[in-house]
This record gives sequence, structure tokens and C-alpha cells, in this order.
Amino acid sequence: MTKKQFEAKDFSKEALEEIITGILKKLGVPEKDSRITADVLISAELRNIPSHGLIRLPDYIGLLENGRINPSPAIKTIHETLSTAVIDGDGGLGTVVAVKSMETAIEKAKTAGTGWVAVRNSNHYGIAGYYSMMALKHDMTGISMTNANPLVAPTFSKDRLYGTNPISVAIPAGEQPPFVVDMATSAIARGKLYIKQINGEKVKYGYVQDKEGNPSNEPGILTEGGSILPLGSSYEYGSHRGYCMAATVDILSSIFSGAGFGPFVPPSVPFLDPLKEKDGEGIGHFFGALRIDAFQSKEEFKKRMDKWIETFKNAKPTKENERVLIPGDPEREAEEKNKNQPINISEKLSGKIKTICEKYNVDF
Amino acid sequence: MTKKQFEAKDFSKEALEEIITGILKKLGVPEKDSRITADVLISAELRNIPSHGLIRLPDYIGLLENGRINPSPAIKTIHETLSTAVIDGDGGLGTVVAVKSMETAIEKAKTAGTGWVAVRNSNHYGIAGYYSMMALKHDMTGISMTNANPLVAPTFSKDRLYGTNPISVAIPAGEQPPFVVDMATSAIARGKLYIKQINGEKVKYGYVQDKEGNPSNEPGILTEGGSILPLGSSYEYGSHRGYCMAATVDILSSIFSGAGFGPFVPPSVPFLDPLKEKDGEGIGHFFGALRIDAFQSKEEFKKRMDKWIETFKNAKPTKENERVLIPGDPEREAEEKNKNQPINISEKLSGKIKTICEKYNVDF
Repeated sequence: MTKKQFEAKDFSKEALEEIITGILKKLGVPEKDSRITADVLISAELRNIPSHGLIRLPDYIGLLENGRINPSPAIKTIHETLSTAVIDGDGGLGTVVAVKSMETAIEKAKTAGTGWVAVRNSNHYGIAGYYSMMALKHDMTGISMTNANPLVAPTFSKDRLYGTNPISVAIPAGEQPPFVVDMATSAIARGKLYIKQINGEKVKYGYVQDKEGNPSNEPGILTEGGSILPLGSSYEYGSHRGYCMAATVDILSSIFSGAGFGPFVPPSVPFLDPLKEKDGEGIGHFFGALRIDAFQSKEEFKKRMDKWIETFKNAKPTKENERVLIPGDPEREAEEKNKNQPINISEKLSGKIKTICEKYNVDF
Repeated sequence: MTKKQFEAKDFSKEALEEIITGILKKLGVPEKDSRITADVLISAELRNIPSHGLIRLPDYIGLLENGRINPSPAIKTIHETLSTAVIDGDGGLGTVVAVKSMETAIEKAKTAGTGWVAVRNSNHYGIAGYYSMMALKHDMTGISMTNANPLVAPTFSKDRLYGTNPISVAIPAGEQPPFVVDMATSAIARGKLYIKQINGEKVKYGYVQDKEGNPSNEPGILTEGGSILPLGSSYEYGSHRGYCMAATVDILSSIFSGAGFGPFVPPSVPFLDPLKEKDGEGIGHFFGALRIDAFQSKEEFKKRMDKWIETFKNAKPTKENERVLIPGDPEREAEEKNKNQPINISEKLSGKIKTICEKYNVDF
């Protein structure tokens, strides 16, 4: 790309890939792993999940710079059975560890019907859906989940004990596009609060509480010891169910793998110090791959998934201008619309990345 | 039990078991299967989930009487791999089909590390947690889910397209009692609405909507075409996430197994006619069993689960009279309290059961 081709904040996909891989390589990340990381971050931008896109790059770089992410990890399977594996990510980039781990789940599924991989000693892995969707081209259902920095309080508590712990499930269809869930298990995603905060806006009650557990409408309350509420917002509306889901994700990601659980998940940002008390190794993930034909013939399965999707898509909307969404539709539609457009990065973030490029002598 | 031993509405566990198995045997259900069904229903009563307890017995009996449940099914594995099986329940009692299917998942896990069983041609199976907890004594994590009669509308729709589709996950611990999630994926469970309705009470807004999709506070609105909302209540508060979870449960239970999906799940009550349009066979379930030592040593796993549970249990409560609950605590505490007490059944239900006993010449 020539510098004149786009506005200061607009980047082509290719230009961004070169910038990201250029910087990561200078920090000792192998070419292939740099490209994986670029692909995960750009994928988040294309799918309109900017909270997990380029905004994470300066954090990854900061953690690489201060030795808290290992640029060139020896990712190892440390235990396995026919359908399971436990992988130690050796402190590598979460993106790289997660791709390797999901590949392992897919390989296990080829012989055992399903494959389940618990991962420890990893780092922030970006969008959960990137990995679950890897299963689709193998005619498999993919599952991806991770624990995350503790910002959410369980029902009836004021303590930040666990993260927004996302779950993604990607299920193949036939003529219809795949069904792709990719969701936080909290009342609101961290990224959405952050955007409200920098815009100086309030939020509705039911998303966050202050450090004493009182209702709050301040998106910035997390910086003052406040916490995000579980999906459901209050016990009355089922927040114990949101807490149950998040707790399950945390346990699968940590106790199954040997990673840190809940409050022992290490910070994914360089401006927070490493934890003083350690329990388990790094951030944990959990992946699954289920071969379609371990259950049904591929033809029958895909035909019925198409019918499922059509049935739900054609449900009567509550209001005329609404429609029932199939999980994955909004992100896929965004990706189709965005893939040939320049990617817009905020001036502030673009400035940060420019500074990093200058430091490492990478073309911006 | 002698008839004088308890009030009309109070039954000993043993008396209830004899009543249930007595009736079921007269309807052609084998002794062993009758005892399984009694145990599942009584377990729901002991665990304070009466919406899935004895109240279901007249429904099961009605469906057996009119041939919509097969009393003596030939339950068959129709497809399998090392870690998976698809089971056809031959239209049997959901309780019986589910126990057999969970046993199959546990057997698969013994050799493959994990076992995953999709089930079709089954019926209402009672509390999801009964089956997930079967894994605990084998030092395994158990997973249980089912689809259910369509009463819930997806986000942005007024159509009842799927059920309260529960998920249960039971994870073993060491000194601590196990972690047991057992939850509907809707804003409220059907049974809770029913109790409000018979008491003539209103509910808060955010649980149900009328047939046009307008907010409603009438717990009886379901009988007028209204629907339950997904967990999260509104799009604003993440009901699309509740919908995503429920949709995943529906697909795993139906498309993976060959059972009916969403609106094609057959009614679990005899007063509703069988569906006119059929797609797939009966109600579907999905079970999983994960051997602890397919991931970690049993000692290490249990030690860390204990620490997880202690950490969450000791979180600071928001209010002095509250405490952070570990999933499964309320039901287990109820069971411990109730197990040596008579079981209290409402006069109305007790009357219904008495009538059935008279019809089949079973001691009441």
C-alpha cells in the first residue's frame, strides 16, 4: 500500500497484516505465528468485534516486550487419551496456542469421533469464534471457550472473581451458512463498556455494580473496584444461571488444564502487574471438535440444519422492522460487507501502532 | 406405611416409590424401569424441584395409557464411534432412556476418555441433573441436556419456537461436595410460572410476553399464545445470549440425534394432541461424560476443585444476609434436609394420584 491510498485511519487488510507480522517478527515471533496472530486480530475487525481486534495489539506487544508472553513457545501435549489432550502453551501468544490446540482437537475427532483439548499456560486468545470455526471445513462442530481476567462478580457478591468467559459453538449447515455462537457469559462484554466510557456516556442499570455491590450506571466503575454482573443481571432475572455458565467455562479452562482459575487468571494487559499469588499456569482454554458423521450422515445432518435455520429465520418478528437472527449472521454479514473495504482504526489506536512501528523500524 | 402414619398429603419416600412403581408396572413398564422412574421423580421432590417431580406422574401415565409412551422399549444404539453413540429410545419413558444413554456415555469415557451420546425418540426425562450426577461416582464430569416443548420465543420474535432447554453439568470435587449446575436457559422456568398462576399472582415484567410480543406480567399468558423470554429477558440485557444457549441445546439434542427440533418437539402432556407435522423422532437429549484422569491426576483435580469451591464460597457477599452459592448447593442442602422427612404433595396432586391408584388397584 502507498501511504496516500487511504485516510490516516484506514488500512487495507494486507497492509495491516504486514504491519502486525512486521512488528511481531521483530519481537522474536516466528513468521507463521505472526501471520496467525494478524489473521485472528483482523478477523475480529472484519466481523465487527473491534474490542478483540487491533486494540489488543499494543497489549500483546507490551507483554512480549516485558517477557510476559513467550514469542517462541514450545507448545506441548502433556497428557492424552483417545479423545482428549492437555496442552501446555509454554506462555506463548494465545492466538498461536489456541490454533495449535484446536488442530489437536480436530485430529483427535478424526479417529475418536470427538476431540477435547484443555489448555494451560496460554494468554489472551482474541475472538473465541475464530477457533470453533476452524472445525467447519472438516465437517465438524467446533467448541471454544476461555477464562479471562477477573472482572465479573458472582450473584450475591461484590468480589470480581471471574472473567467475561466466552463460549463459541460453530455448527456446519448445508445450503445455509453455519450456525456460530460467540458470546460472553456476562450481562455485557468488557469492550462495550469501554466504548461507552471513552464516549463519556452512562449505561443502563443492570450491567455493572460499584465496589460495594450497589447498582451503578457508570461504565468506568471497573477502574474503581466495581464489577460486571453475570448474564441475567440480578438473581430475580436469573443471573445465577449466567454465573453457572461462566463458572463452568472457568473450570473447564482451568481445573481441567492446570491453568489459573477465576481470580488467579493473570492480567492480559501490560499496565497491570503480574499476580502476587499464583495458582495454576497462565490463562486456560477448552476446545472441542465433534465429527458430524460420528452422529449422523453428513447429508441428513446438513439438510436438517438447513431446515432448523430456515424455521428460526422465518419466525414472526415482534416488530415489523425486526427479524430473528441466526447465531453468527450479524458477524458473517459484517465480514462480507467489510472484506473488500479498508479497515477503519481510531486515530488514537492508529497513533499507538505508528509509534510501535517507528520503534521497531516497520513500515507503517 | 400404614395409612394413619402421615397426613393425607405427606408420603414417605418408600411409600411413594411403591405407589409409582405399582402403577407403572400395571401399565406394562418393567419393574427395573418403574424403579428408575420413581427414583428420578422422588429425587426432584427431595431436591426441591417439585415442578419436575410427582406432578409429572399423571402426565407420564396419560401418555402411557394412550400409547404415546412405549412402556417396554427396545432401546438401541444405532450408530457409534470410539467416543460417541446415537441412541434410539423407541418411544420409551425419558427417565429410562436417559439412564441407559448416560450409562453408555460413561462406558465410552472409560475407554476413549470422554463419551458423548445423542438420543432420539425419547420423552420428558425429568430433572437434567439426575443424569449428569450419575458420572460423579465414576470420577467423571457429567453433562446432560434436553430439548422440550416449544414455549420460548427467540429474541425479536413472538413465536414459541423452542423449550426451556435445560443444561446440567456435574463436576466432582474432593472434600467439598460436587459442583452441579442444573438450569433452564430461559428467563424463568415453566414450573415457577405455573405456581404463580395457580396462586393467582402476577409476575414482574421480563419473564413472558403476550402472543403479539408485548410485555406481560400474566404468568398464565402461555395458555393464550404468549411465550417465555430467553435468559436475559431483552436484547438490551443479552437475551440473544440466552437464545444462543437454548438453540445450541436444541441442535445437540435433535440434529445430532435425529429427534424433533424446536417446534417439532412432541407435547409431553396427554391433554395436547400429537403434532400434525412431524420432523424427526420424539424428544431429544444429549449426554457427555469426561473422565477426570483423561485430563489431570484425580488427586490434583480434586484438590483444585476444592480450592475453586472454597474461593467462590468465601467471596464477600453484597449484603450481610446473603452468601455466594456454589452451583448445586441449594438442591443438595434441600436433599439432606428432606431425605428423612415425609414428602409433601399438594392435596390436588395427591387426589389425582389416588384416583389413578384406584383405577389400577394399587395401594395408596
